[in-house]
Amino acid sequence: MKDRAQNAIAECLRLAAFTEEPGRITRRFLTPPMQGVHGRLRERMKELGMSVTVDAAGNMRGVWQPEGASKKRLVIGSHVDTVPDAGAYDGVLGVCLGLELVQIAAERKITITIEVIAFSEEEGVRFSVPFIGSRAVAGRFDGALLSLIDAEGVTLEDAIRDYGLDPAKIAEAELDEGAVAVLEIHIEQGPVLESEKLSIAAVTDIAGQTRMSLLFRGHANHAGTTPMHLRHDALAGAAEWIAVVERLARETDGLIATVGKIEVDPNAGNVVPGVAAVSLDLRHSSDSRRAAALEMLLTRANEIARRRNLRFESKRLMDQAAVPMDERLTTFLVEAMEANNLPPRRMPSGAGHDAMVMAARVPTAMLFLRSPGGVSHHPDEAVREEDVENVLRVASTFIERIAADLK
Amino acid sequence: MKDRAQNAIAECLRLAAFTEEPGRITRRFLTPPMQGVHGRLRERMKELGMSVTVDAAGNMRGVWQPEGASKKRLVIGSHVDTVPDAGAYDGVLGVCLGLELVQIAAERKITITIEVIAFSEEEGVRFSVPFIGSRAVAGRFDGALLSLIDAEGVTLEDAIRDYGLDPAKIAEAELDEGAVAVLEIHIEQGPVLESEKLSIAAVTDIAGQTRMSLLFRGHANHAGTTPMHLRHDALAGAAEWIAVVERLARETDGLIATVGKIEVDPNAGNVVPGVAAVSLDLRHSSDSRRAAALEMLLTRANEIARRRNLRFESKRLMDQAAVPMDERLTTFLVEAMEANNLPPRRMPSGAGHDAMVMAARVPTAMLFLRSPGGVSHHPDEAVREEDVENVLRVASTFIERIAADLK
Repeated sequence: MKDRAQNAIAECLRLAAFTEEPGRITRRFLTPPMQGVHGRLRERMKELGMSVTVDAAGNMRGVWQPEGASKKRLVIGSHVDTVPDAGAYDGVLGVCLGLELVQIAAERKITITIEVIAFSEEEGVRFSVPFIGSRAVAGRFDGALLSLIDAEGVTLEDAIRDYGLDPAKIAEAELDEGAVAVLEIHIEQGPVLESEKLSIAAVTDIAGQTRMSLLFRGHANHAGTTPMHLRHDALAGAAEWIAVVERLARETDGLIATVGKIEVDPNAGNVVPGVAAVSLDLRHSSDSRRAAALEMLLTRANEIARRRNLRFESKRLMDQAAVPMDERLTTFLVEAMEANNLPPRRMPSGAGHDAMVMAARVPTAMLFLRSPGGVSHHPDEAVREEDVENVLRVASTFIERIAADLK
Repeated sequence: MKDRAQNAIAECLRLAAFTEEPGRITRRFLTPPMQGVHGRLRERMKELGMSVTVDAAGNMRGVWQPEGASKKRLVIGSHVDTVPDAGAYDGVLGVCLGLELVQIAAERKITITIEVIAFSEEEGVRFSVPFIGSRAVAGRFDGALLSLIDAEGVTLEDAIRDYGLDPAKIAEAELDEGAVAVLEIHIEQGPVLESEKLSIAAVTDIAGQTRMSLLFRGHANHAGTTPMHLRHDALAGAAEWIAVVERLARETDGLIATVGKIEVDPNAGNVVPGVAAVSLDLRHSSDSRRAAALEMLLTRANEIARRRNLRFESKRLMDQAAVPMDERLTTFLVEAMEANNLPPRRMPSGAGHDAMVMAARVPTAMLFLRSPGGVSHHPDEAVREEDVENVLRVASTFIERIAADLK
């Protein structure tokens, strides 16, 4: 297992060389370096005796069907696009581990068909829309997406064509009925497992998410000539509300709330702020608790604005329901963790993943590996070899269980 | 008096036409429109029988010396430069009123020499340094200022030469011993008099001022994957401190504190803020109370940072002591207000003025007029005719008192 773990890590580092920017890992959807990744993955898949195709959405798909195995199959996958100046493991590791798991299954002579998918697009960098790859595989690709335009003025449709694929065939990328389960393995991208000194966790759900923009509007006044009691300070109002947001999230189990962005006008040291615009990012595994938190925060914002003689406006930018992972598969994962003497940690994912899109189509489960320092989307992103070994052990046990189940 | 008030207002509006930008009032130090202002002021001064000069710092100075008056004189002045997109009264009104007061003194046959000064630079727009005009008149002009460079790459020295003046003669701009008192009349630029339904006030002092930049540094983390208890949110820390600043200023008599500027990094809705940089502008008539407030705010910032595992840094950008106006002259003003049946309101000035610079050289006093809506540095800046009449009445009484005193 140690060899397989080392090999997965080595493959990630090898694929990191396929980048748009020398010295940094940046690999957007269907850019030339993605051809490099496809070339290397194809080579490895062929070595493993897999049949290889690239679907019309740019997803590379390898199928391993050992003698005696039915068409019913387990899908293992994650994405191979990256954010700008990325680390080497976000997404890619889940694909490389899929191939190691095929090799392990072959060595152990497990009779199960496995499809490994390298999703082409998850980060939403090139066309400002995420999950383009998994949308196609899940049969949730809206044809209108083909008109999206990237920063260079290229449409998604032309990008697909330029890559040598046929945009008219995207519907054919959809999984057939043979796919009975999906497993995504991904780095946690957060500090929870590290803080608990744990190696891996089974993901219970992808948290639901609301994004808002909020505006407090007062009056810009001279900072020297306007006494405190005659001010309508928009930033002071926003600051009071930011404290409310933080307090609510700290006191509410499972709620994550972030004010990540603030813009003040006129934003000068000697002028009382006239306008303060802030963002709100609210996440919870329970949609009703997220909705209740949002209502409470908007009520409090209105109260603060009224008391301070400010005007308050808010706008909803995104509202995404929580997506639970499949309970039966997740239980299999937890049992596999116990069988391998690992604590049966379950945790929600605060970030979106391909698994979220796939879950709408096929029973889906997900495993997280510890992220050292909680670091991700950064060149310092890393994994521990020990954790990669553990996730391979657990996933192998899981595959055996699925194989037994399919008999 | 009504005629004189109307004339002063009409003169302000006439001078507003001398601008660098059509449709907006923008008149920086020694730009061509200032020649227009000088031309018009010279005309008016000549009509009043004044002797007119422009000193080497670009200040226009008219002296009215009626028969029998000694060389001991009262100086009345304010500035004629403006901020970009200014109103018509900030500074200019104090000069126009000086000329009306000369006319009133002539009509009333008051035997006193009056010098009216149109200071060339107060706002600090062109060379990023304020009070250039009054510094020269007060004998506080540092020769190093001549090397300042404006946005077009012109040095202050060349700007003076281009205007037809001799930078070598700046020292000669200093007031001689004949100047025994200075009076500046200026709009309040704040909402206090309006909120109290008062026409005018005598200024007790120019508040001392500290400007700081402060930095809270935490860790930028993924807003979805970082639970609340593992965050080091720089903005949440800054927001907590902004509330402390506001509370202290509200609870401390005479303290004015403003956080006008905030910059967050990376400033994205889905990233926990890693850095929050904020400004602090702190003003008080008492230097010791200002220093105590600053110490308290820095102590609290350090406490907040320590508790939140943030790093905190601060940098002092400006520290300017409070400047009291001359007590004897201010008492004359208050008595003149009472003599004219006006409430004897005294108030500090939160903003800097030429009077602050002049006070270091000559006993100086200052009168504020109500600013409708508290508006200034804006095209909507206005004055009420009734207030202009009142300030002329009070200043005339003040001049009579000074004249009697000089006998």
